[in-house]
Amino acid sequence: MSVTSPAGFSATGASVGIKASGVPDAALIVAATPAVAAAVFTQNKVPAAPVQMSRAHLAEAGSRVRAVLLTSGNANAATGAEGLSACAALCGEVAESIGCDPSEVLICQTGLIGIPFPLESARAGVASLAETLGEDEASAHRAATAIMTTDTFAKEVRIERDGVTLGGMAKGAAMLAPDMATMLCLLTIDATIEADVLQRALRSAVGPSFNSMDVDGATSTNDTVIVLASGLGPACPEQLVTDLLTEACMKLAQDMVVDAEGATKAVRITVTGARTDPDAHRGARKVATSQLVKCSLNGEDPYWGRILSDIGTAGIDMDPALTTISYGGIVVSAGGIGITHDVPAVAAHLAERWNLISIDLGLGDGSASILTTDLGYGYIDENRTTS
Amino acid sequence: MSVTSPAGFSATGASVGIKASGVPDAALIVAATPAVAAAVFTQNKVPAAPVQMSRAHLAEAGSRVRAVLLTSGNANAATGAEGLSACAALCGEVAESIGCDPSEVLICQTGLIGIPFPLESARAGVASLAETLGEDEASAHRAATAIMTTDTFAKEVRIERDGVTLGGMAKGAAMLAPDMATMLCLLTIDATIEADVLQRALRSAVGPSFNSMDVDGATSTNDTVIVLASGLGPACPEQLVTDLLTEACMKLAQDMVVDAEGATKAVRITVTGARTDPDAHRGARKVATSQLVKCSLNGEDPYWGRILSDIGTAGIDMDPALTTISYGGIVVSAGGIGITHDVPAVAAHLAERWNLISIDLGLGDGSASILTTDLGYGYIDENRTTS
Repeated sequence: MSVTSPAGFSATGASVGIKASGVPDAALIVAATPAVAAAVFTQNKVPAAPVQMSRAHLAEAGSRVRAVLLTSGNANAATGAEGLSACAALCGEVAESIGCDPSEVLICQTGLIGIPFPLESARAGVASLAETLGEDEASAHRAATAIMTTDTFAKEVRIERDGVTLGGMAKGAAMLAPDMATMLCLLTIDATIEADVLQRALRSAVGPSFNSMDVDGATSTNDTVIVLASGLGPACPEQLVTDLLTEACMKLAQDMVVDAEGATKAVRITVTGARTDPDAHRGARKVATSQLVKCSLNGEDPYWGRILSDIGTAGIDMDPALTTISYGGIVVSAGGIGITHDVPAVAAHLAERWNLISIDLGLGDGSASILTTDLGYGYIDENRTTS
Repeated sequence: MSVTSPAGFSATGASVGIKASGVPDAALIVAATPAVAAAVFTQNKVPAAPVQMSRAHLAEAGSRVRAVLLTSGNANAATGAEGLSACAALCGEVAESIGCDPSEVLICQTGLIGIPFPLESARAGVASLAETLGEDEASAHRAATAIMTTDTFAKEVRIERDGVTLGGMAKGAAMLAPDMATMLCLLTIDATIEADVLQRALRSAVGPSFNSMDVDGATSTNDTVIVLASGLGPACPEQLVTDLLTEACMKLAQDMVVDAEGATKAVRITVTGARTDPDAHRGARKVATSQLVKCSLNGEDPYWGRILSDIGTAGIDMDPALTTISYGGIVVSAGGIGITHDVPAVAAHLAERWNLISIDLGLGDGSASILTTDLGYGYIDENRTTS
């Protein structure tokens, strides 16, 4: 059911004429009554028009939101004043169709950067999206499908706990396609909650999930995570909503990495024993973004020397003599040198779809994990041209 | 002539049994009388044994050096106490063969990380290297050839100015081979100069050359640049020696990028108009390490949106409205949007071996350039396995 699981939300997805192929390219999620909203946007200094507009609308409407429009096929980024006008026109169409103020509509878009948005072809389709809204599973799935780009499956989540229901959908991160490096995520919840608490909970949930995922080090112009709370369910303690949001975001982040196009491996890099958690995060991210390590994973080659070398240049406290490296729990290096290990077992682990690399620095209690992928021909094929 | 061009230096190169293939894998450069030495080593916190030993020898011998041994085929990194013993044994053999103290011998090594160094097979060959030393062009070229890994040509340089002669040789940077990501460079000069001045000049020369080159963001465990001054030439003003070293290092850095295996393009990324030079450097490096930008270059696709997006996440001051992006001098984006341009001319530029990307931020006087490569199948092929 995903986004329509919590009481108070309806959804739809359809083709509105953005993608030339005619596949679904727009989703609409509507709250029956104004929902409390929270959002986390890209930190890119070149935010796309929809990011600028959604930020402005959230401020203007005091975090009360009636609808979120999500489109795929054109990022509407680096499109200047015309791009903002297009966003305003689309939000206006949605507002008119459901009877609310345009400032109560948020917008997310994904696709090629720097191409003028085809407003004239998309406008009528967006205006009529509301006609097909539904609260059933099929409607939610239509929405989740319409934001897919080269994803091979729709990414949805539903969690119920202590009388609270959460639903969510997302589209994948980098490595999906040349033009679709954006991650978008929309979550709905029926809890009764204040906007500032919801915002705090969302920020907390994004840390170990979407902000601990790194496919190619790129932060898109359009990345957006939004949560809407209908208030039709029980009052929800901050810890519970934080837990629910974190669980949902981690599930969706994992789906994105597994489904990253061009990748043959999903890889979890864990650093423990760092001086601090931020040190551990920095170390794990350095290894996760290492082209050399990612190529080794593509070749299923347990070349731990590259991992040690990358940790050595992560800008964090480390001492090779105290460092331990393992693949799938099998220690291959300790004390700064290679050690005798079960070679066939490491080979069997690296042949699997999921790889686990653990690095213990032996210095303190800091730990962190990053989800990433390998680097192979598939990534090159996806990204060398936009045509 | 390269390293033997300045008065007072002889060189040789030979196969000593490190590489199983039997191709040359050791070079020796000898100063007739103790030379003033300066060096810059990797900042990696996992320095290879030869880096540790050369640092110690420089400190012990007060920057007076008689010889530098360079070997290829095994990095002698992450090899623990045995690795250091192997270095000591090799330096001892060289010292005995030319009649000096072992502390007057520096050592550079490159190859696979984490594999015990084959001391027993290499020892006799290293001990007899001095027998083939020569001051002629062929001897210098033998040395430059013996440090090659998958380089397709030996990288040598010779400059004469104001009565001073400088020679140099280098082996390539990352992207050369799975196991040979190290850059090594040895420079010789006949100038009479103090050690501290030489060290300052070398640091200054490394900034715009080797430290402004980024093939895949990796800093090896073994990177080393050494300069030896014989003092047989004239006293040399600091500015002149700085200029000569800078020119030589930039020539060798350019050779490395052009010859980076697996790359089809050599690319100069220039950022101007930044608030400061460090900001410009950071922006250029962010673009140079962007997998997405590098893939576009491989596909000869002028997708400037990725460049703008990367600059937006470089962590520097920038405003898309003030930013201009060009390929080969042809402006494709200004004011944060795409602009009409000569499409065939951009295509023709991107089809060339050398690509130039310029980004002007319109904020200040800061500027910097980074040399890099594209990212294609070749890089994957070179790096996915070590076998």
